[in-house]
Amino acid sequence: MSSPTQAHAAPARDHARTNLDADAATRLDPEAATRLDPEAVRRPDPDAAAPLSSDASAGFAANSQPRFQTDPRFTAAERDAVYRAIHTRRDVRGEFLPDAIPDEVLARVLTAAHHAPSVGFMQPWDFIVVRSREVRAKIHADFLAAHAEAEQMFDAEKRATYRNLKLEGILESPVNICITCDRSRHGPVVIGRTHIGAMDIYSAVCAVQNLWLAARAEGLGVGWVSILHPPALREALGIPQEIIPIAYLCVGYVRDFHARPELEAAGWLKRMPLPELLHFDGWQGPADAAGQALAEAIRAVQPFPR
Amino acid sequence: MSSPTQAHAAPARDHARTNLDADAATRLDPEAATRLDPEAVRRPDPDAAAPLSSDASAGFAANSQPRFQTDPRFTAAERDAVYRAIHTRRDVRGEFLPDAIPDEVLARVLTAAHHAPSVGFMQPWDFIVVRSREVRAKIHADFLAAHAEAEQMFDAEKRATYRNLKLEGILESPVNICITCDRSRHGPVVIGRTHIGAMDIYSAVCAVQNLWLAARAEGLGVGWVSILHPPALREALGIPQEIIPIAYLCVGYVRDFHARPELEAAGWLKRMPLPELLHFDGWQGPADAAGQALAEAIRAVQPFPR
Repeated sequence: MSSPTQAHAAPARDHARTNLDADAATRLDPEAATRLDPEAVRRPDPDAAAPLSSDASAGFAANSQPRFQTDPRFTAAERDAVYRAIHTRRDVRGEFLPDAIPDEVLARVLTAAHHAPSVGFMQPWDFIVVRSREVRAKIHADFLAAHAEAEQMFDAEKRATYRNLKLEGILESPVNICITCDRSRHGPVVIGRTHIGAMDIYSAVCAVQNLWLAARAEGLGVGWVSILHPPALREALGIPQEIIPIAYLCVGYVRDFHARPELEAAGWLKRMPLPELLHFDGWQGPADAAGQALAEAIRAVQPFPR
Repeated sequence: MSSPTQAHAAPARDHARTNLDADAATRLDPEAATRLDPEAVRRPDPDAAAPLSSDASAGFAANSQPRFQTDPRFTAAERDAVYRAIHTRRDVRGEFLPDAIPDEVLARVLTAAHHAPSVGFMQPWDFIVVRSREVRAKIHADFLAAHAEAEQMFDAEKRATYRNLKLEGILESPVNICITCDRSRHGPVVIGRTHIGAMDIYSAVCAVQNLWLAARAEGLGVGWVSILHPPALREALGIPQEIIPIAYLCVGYVRDFHARPELEAAGWLKRMPLPELLHFDGWQGPADAAGQALAEAIRAVQPFPR
């Protein structure tokens, strides 16, 4: 655990653009160390040239908080509110209202996303807030093209169902947000990304989920649109080659939140019994007495919403 | 949006093992369609042979809930509790207590993870609950090896700091949980994964963040250990070739939760100003009046914890 004597320089945000080509920037292997070429991003950085000690002391001078949270306990009501957000969050497609989102609400939701966990505290995300109808229309046109392609991938019997599913609210929602990942932020060597190169991508996904849950608590629906051609999304939003678009989200107030996920309610797939997804001490580990007790406790958990 | 007339067969979980080699199973390109070979997972499945109509009607017979949530609004107190979890969640390494976690608490936290969003409702995750000290010791030994390798990747001036950071609580926490992704679950064609192959991996990461926030609300600390060699993790847990380990988490009660992320408090990196990470209608989009108003609203958001 770090302490003042271990304090270290906080390099300023690295604005240097890298030489990564799109392939190198977008291909990732969850089990390999980062594929970023250290030489590609190791650039002279005037900010980083500041004396270590001064940066370090500055880092601590700025710390006017107690080291630990002074009131860490959640009440039962607070705990239940967190579970309520988790269990009533839905992927919204068809119920968006055009009502404007007040800036203070959008500010809280984006701040929640920015406080997601990030590997090595690299905070690799950016947020492209899209209100322009023209830009959204471009992205919607690409969705229609991708949707038509996707339809052909399903067996004939499922094709009609797929064709009729409402899968996005790009134009009906007042705000779209694209969350991206800058893999070269703060330089090539990141604490915790040295052996699993995808950790920065995973951090950006955690920001998506924070935003999604915060939005639910605000009464805002969110829909993640993934039936898009990434090159078309990049073109529509002018996303640089070395920045990875992670999620394209539709955000807005809604007429209703579905009681259950729409694909579950439609019988497309069933909710899997959680005990079937549990393993104990290893993939093949049989449930010992402790494991069986946990599975029983899971069966006793009341689903939300009641 | 789907309706009863569009109801469709819910294929049973596909237990068929695929012919994917480790490379094919673990390499993913966030911007490409899934690399899974459809032929590799298209297997005769007795469950899938059930008549469509019966599965579909069964899916609806089971639906005894109203279609929409009947009380969708969160109170201000509920909303603030969600923000409290988001802003006080920490990546815990050094404060774990050995206290046992009651089954009902672990059950709620795992149920929260299982209710994460998943592309096409595929629920691609499994949860390996690790209590065995022997198994955890194997994984801790691999951490030590990876940590020593990582140390050499830092500049000499940062190496001493890195060496002294506490980066995991594998043995101090009573429970470790490995969350994985089964990319072939329910077959090769998944709604929403047709054009962005990494969507199933992203779903598993959303489950990690749900678990993390639920744990914080329960007073449980979680630490994500990513300084591991994935092959060693696979060996220690017996994870099959085609299953992707996404996160290895240490879970337990804690002495304290840090007021700020430890790397921020240590001055390793600073919290980036969120307005610097905002873009409007495109990456290069200048902040118009609306964008400037949003940035101002963000600056007015009070950080947690106060």
